[in-house]
Amino acid sequence: MDLAAVVRRFELDQLYADYVHCLDADELERWPDFFTEDCFYRITSAENYEAGLPLGLIYATSRNMLKDRISALRQANIYEPQRYRHLVSSIKIVGEVAEILDLVANFLVVRIMQDGEMTIFGAGCYVDQVRRDGDSWKFARRIVVLDSRQIDTLLAIPI
Amino acid sequence: MDLAAVVRRFELDQLYADYVHCLDADELERWPDFFTEDCFYRITSAENYEAGLPLGLIYATSRNMLKDRISALRQANIYEPQRYRHLVSSIKIVGEVAEILDLVANFLVVRIMQDGEMTIFGAGCYVDQVRRDGDSWKFARRIVVLDSRQIDTLLAIPI
Amino acid sequence: MDLAAVVRRFELDQLYADYVHCLDADELERWPDFFTEDCFYRITSAENYEAGLPLGLIYATSRNMLKDRISALRQANIYEPQRYRHLVSSIKIVGEVAEILDLVANFLVVRIMQDGEMTIFGAGCYVDQVRRDGDSWKFARRIVVLDSRQIDTLLAIPI
Repeated sequence: MDLAAVVRRFELDQLYADYVHCLDADELERWPDFFTEDCFYRITSAENYEAGLPLGLIYATSRNMLKDRISALRQANIYEPQRYRHLVSSIKIVGEVAEILDLVANFLVVRIMQDGEMTIFGAGCYVDQVRRDGDSWKFARRIVVLDSRQIDTLLAIPI
Repeated sequence: MDLAAVVRRFELDQLYADYVHCLDADELERWPDFFTEDCFYRITSAENYEAGLPLGLIYATSRNMLKDRISALRQANIYEPQRYRHLVSSIKIVGEVAEILDLVANFLVVRIMQDGEMTIFGAGCYVDQVRRDGDSWKFARRIVVLDSRQIDTLLAIPI
Repeated sequence: MDLAAVVRRFELDQLYADYVHCLDADELERWPDFFTEDCFYRITSAENYEAGLPLGLIYATSRNMLKDRISALRQANIYEPQRYRHLVSSIKIVGEVAEILDLVANFLVVRIMQDGEMTIFGAGCYVDQVRRDGDSWKFARRIVVLDSRQIDTLLAIPI
């Protein structure tokens, strides 16, 4: 492993950290910018994912669809009273072709209600593909695989 | 990004890891050493933080005040029967002037009671400023922003 | 810190990430490969660990014993309906002699039941020793110190 590989690893760490802080600060308008224009984004359950089922709580095949998603969320305004906090660990490169990388990472999302109640909202694994974009990286694919098959569908927020 | 930047990033990772292990091992006497002499330390809620309110569960403007805090905790001895476990992720440099860095990071604190019950004690975001101190780094400012506005004030332990 | 030290740190991060994904993907058959042949693996409570008691929920002194453990688990098949998700943070090198390193790290394990219920299964600290093995690293010792003294002994899965 040379310096270039180490630097790349840092850039990827940064990408994952930026993404999390964007969501937790409720800066959802800049969330689509983490993705390529022709990205694939999906939230699904481990059960569906392993069975190869294409279903998903959120399913988008372009950055524009992600923008629409955020517009809809802002209008519906149903998720305001909660906060979310993401913890991400164990980022791992599992494949690499040219400047296209496959990665996995674990996440835990804690939901904090207005009365102070804290619960585990979701846990699972990101199954990602990233592509270089200038001096940073973007998600060409992010599949959010939730360990739980029960998802509160009213709260279809990005993860 | 050159080798110096990579090394610095490692030093910062190490600072955050050391801090966490200090707290979780209940080695609170060395906790003030993570701070500069003229440090600012505060635990507050996201609500207060965003409203710009100066209130806080713990509020200190020097390392000596942190030492006093630990002395008081040891005398009160009310928090002994519990254990705490910190998880930290998504450390991100958000600003930099000379050898002074602004950082944010997410945390989750699990509380473990004597009977084995485990609950999420707190989740939130560190809003930090660090300064170089010889070959390591110290916190010149650490604001612990808790997502929940309900804090168990009897348990004003460092986070 | 030179490039070699930085690269080593990455290799260790990778070891911890690989380990976690192995467990969470239920690829337990390759779990023993993370250890040296003469490894020491133990799951215990913080209470027992601090008291110097040799007891443990799982106790193994070789890689072969770890393999036997997995065979037994697969035959018993009692843990199938659950999923586990590990979060690891604050990996810290605490000692170093030649190519033998002592490390600690924090972990949190979330258990996801079939009905979707998510609970904190365990939290604690890894107390590890790793040795270089070719171009990677293996655990010569991994002590899983659980903060809770109550452990569901029916579910003696690797952590």
